[in-house]
Amino acid sequence: MHPDITQQTIGYLILALVFSRVLGLLAERVGQPPVIGEIAAGVILGKAILGWVDANETVSFLGSLGAILLLFQIGLEMEADDLRRVGSSAFSVAIVGVAGPFLAGYVVSRAFGVASFTAVFLGATLTATSVGITARVLKDLGRLQTSESHVILGAAVVDDILGLVILAVVAGIASGHPSQISVLSTVIYAVAFLSLSLFLAAPLAPRLHFVADLLRKNNSLAFTALVFCFLMSYTAARLGLALIVGSFASGLILAGIEHREHIQRRIAPIASFLVPIFFVTVGLTVDFTLLNPASTQAREVFYLSLALFVVAVLFKLLSGVAVLQRGISRKIVGIGMVPRGEVGIIFATIGLTSHIIGKAEYAAVVAIVVLTTFITPPMLKMAFKNHEASLVAPEEAT
Amino acid sequence: MHPDITQQTIGYLILALVFSRVLGLLAERVGQPPVIGEIAAGVILGKAILGWVDANETVSFLGSLGAILLLFQIGLEMEADDLRRVGSSAFSVAIVGVAGPFLAGYVVSRAFGVASFTAVFLGATLTATSVGITARVLKDLGRLQTSESHVILGAAVVDDILGLVILAVVAGIASGHPSQISVLSTVIYAVAFLSLSLFLAAPLAPRLHFVADLLRKNNSLAFTALVFCFLMSYTAARLGLALIVGSFASGLILAGIEHREHIQRRIAPIASFLVPIFFVTVGLTVDFTLLNPASTQAREVFYLSLALFVVAVLFKLLSGVAVLQRGISRKIVGIGMVPRGEVGIIFATIGLTSHIIGKAEYAAVVAIVVLTTFITPPMLKMAFKNHEASLVAPEEAT
Repeated sequence: MHPDITQQTIGYLILALVFSRVLGLLAERVGQPPVIGEIAAGVILGKAILGWVDANETVSFLGSLGAILLLFQIGLEMEADDLRRVGSSAFSVAIVGVAGPFLAGYVVSRAFGVASFTAVFLGATLTATSVGITARVLKDLGRLQTSESHVILGAAVVDDILGLVILAVVAGIASGHPSQISVLSTVIYAVAFLSLSLFLAAPLAPRLHFVADLLRKNNSLAFTALVFCFLMSYTAARLGLALIVGSFASGLILAGIEHREHIQRRIAPIASFLVPIFFVTVGLTVDFTLLNPASTQAREVFYLSLALFVVAVLFKLLSGVAVLQRGISRKIVGIGMVPRGEVGIIFATIGLTSHIIGKAEYAAVVAIVVLTTFITPPMLKMAFKNHEASLVAPEEAT
Repeated sequence: MHPDITQQTIGYLILALVFSRVLGLLAERVGQPPVIGEIAAGVILGKAILGWVDANETVSFLGSLGAILLLFQIGLEMEADDLRRVGSSAFSVAIVGVAGPFLAGYVVSRAFGVASFTAVFLGATLTATSVGITARVLKDLGRLQTSESHVILGAAVVDDILGLVILAVVAGIASGHPSQISVLSTVIYAVAFLSLSLFLAAPLAPRLHFVADLLRKNNSLAFTALVFCFLMSYTAARLGLALIVGSFASGLILAGIEHREHIQRRIAPIASFLVPIFFVTVGLTVDFTLLNPASTQAREVFYLSLALFVVAVLFKLLSGVAVLQRGISRKIVGIGMVPRGEVGIIFATIGLTSHIIGKAEYAAVVAIVVLTTFITPPMLKMAFKNHEASLVAPEEAT
């Protein structure tokens, strides 16, 4: 009955909010970004350890809403110009960062005796960098406005789209109906959607300041901005892209308008309530029991996933070499591309439901996704520090 | 699949936000409180007219969250002292306002040839005033700080609890296991919960200002307040009370602390996003098709519900006479008690699922609930105006 679900979900919400806040503060105490604590809260509360919180329909939705608002905020803090300037680097980093883990993941899986198509699938799950996690880590570190961050975020968005293209192919093959049309349409929609946002809507928005003024006077500006964000997310999803690609684009478009700070101030309290829920839901997906190295069958999967994890990290780090502009740290870009997220988990879910991968492989993929997220923040923090120290020192080290 | 539900729910959310805002502004234009427009938005979007939005699990939850935050805000604006001062009036108004519609509803239903137990049930659905709707209307009218409002809100809370007691009885009989224990425990829990909040926690909270100071310094005060609100709502629900009774109590407790305005400022953006969703979900429940006066069978139900509606309004108006203190307008209190809400609909849902009432009677109850809500704001607005004019005039008219 509805009232019971509502009551239960409020219970989940209380646990998620309290655990993520406490562990986030603890992470900060030891010099790490809060996001690590929030994901850990999900791991602890989920079936991996305590089993107190279940990612039901509503909790998942609130998490998605958190991811949408996070990317909206990140977009609002960007200048479309900054992204356009490093666009070529973002593209080449994304392509190298997708191709590398894909091929390496395939080869490693084959070496472990995995069937060919399953190996393709496992390779595919390693491709997409998580825009949400990357953006949050950069924000936590206070480095959103660096060129490295612009390349990373641009590449992560492109990367997400490449991931969706691969998904269209692989899911098509999995369903027995590979369709060139769906691949092509995904690409065309993605390019059209992002081009319209970056090159048409973003330059146009500041010229519509009389509209913003009018809305502001009627106390409806933040409301309209939020609806616009949801609308862009919905449109992106309808076009087969990720929700967060749409909300990021909506933020970029509104970043140029005069009242941006007003919007940021009104969105911040909503985001600070929902964004941690997103990271908790990421942690909730982890289930260690399927990776128990004590059982023989699980041991094999355990070693496979260890190998895949190494490959997943190494070949994303390598993507940094594809940076084209001078003066941008390739190391930082490479590290920033490491965390995987939603797209990888969506892949794995499809693989599981289409019986391409088993439960153990599914658990392995999820563990890899979460692990890449855990190791990034400390690495990124150190890399930024070293890089900034080197800039002060006589010769520039890239 | 999850991503699809998420996408669909975002679509619902966009429609609910846009329609409720536009119709809310229209309502304001014609001098009515926005809440009418928001409920109308739900009626239009729901199966009654367009059928574009379905109150799925997540939409319902967001609505409940909206109601919780609304009552938290209302509680925050109160002084526990003000409520204690008019406590006796609130009690007598609540009791008269529950007994009247219950008995009258029973008699009218019997007169229409309804079976005895069904008549008891229909009478019961007319008892509980909606705290949420009442509070919102008073807030929209800018009259929350009047003595009349304190009596109305206090009575509506007590009323909700009496409604839950009746529910425990009727549902017990319906299930064939009438339990004196569950009735008694509901009463005891309710009294204990509210007494502890009003007489212990509310006076104690301001003394804990060092805790509030510490939280404020750590940027965690609004967060902690929100978690406290959820926790109290959850506790109330666990005790068999309504979620909103808990959140109202949590607001009352925090109303006395020094940093109350800081909390209000941080909660406002979240509430202004979720509260309209609550009123949209109220409107979504309406389904006219079952009340079509063209079909013979439906016509009978139509006249029955018309009679019940008249009784529902008249006998709540009468409850105003039970005001004990002088200088409080009995007319305003009576009108303020008219709107029914969630509890009535929950009753009807239980009646429907236990086959005590049919689909047509269910639709009738929902229509009555929504209609009482529609007629209250204009009546209340006029009554406040006349009353305030009479206070300026030489003799006081109550």
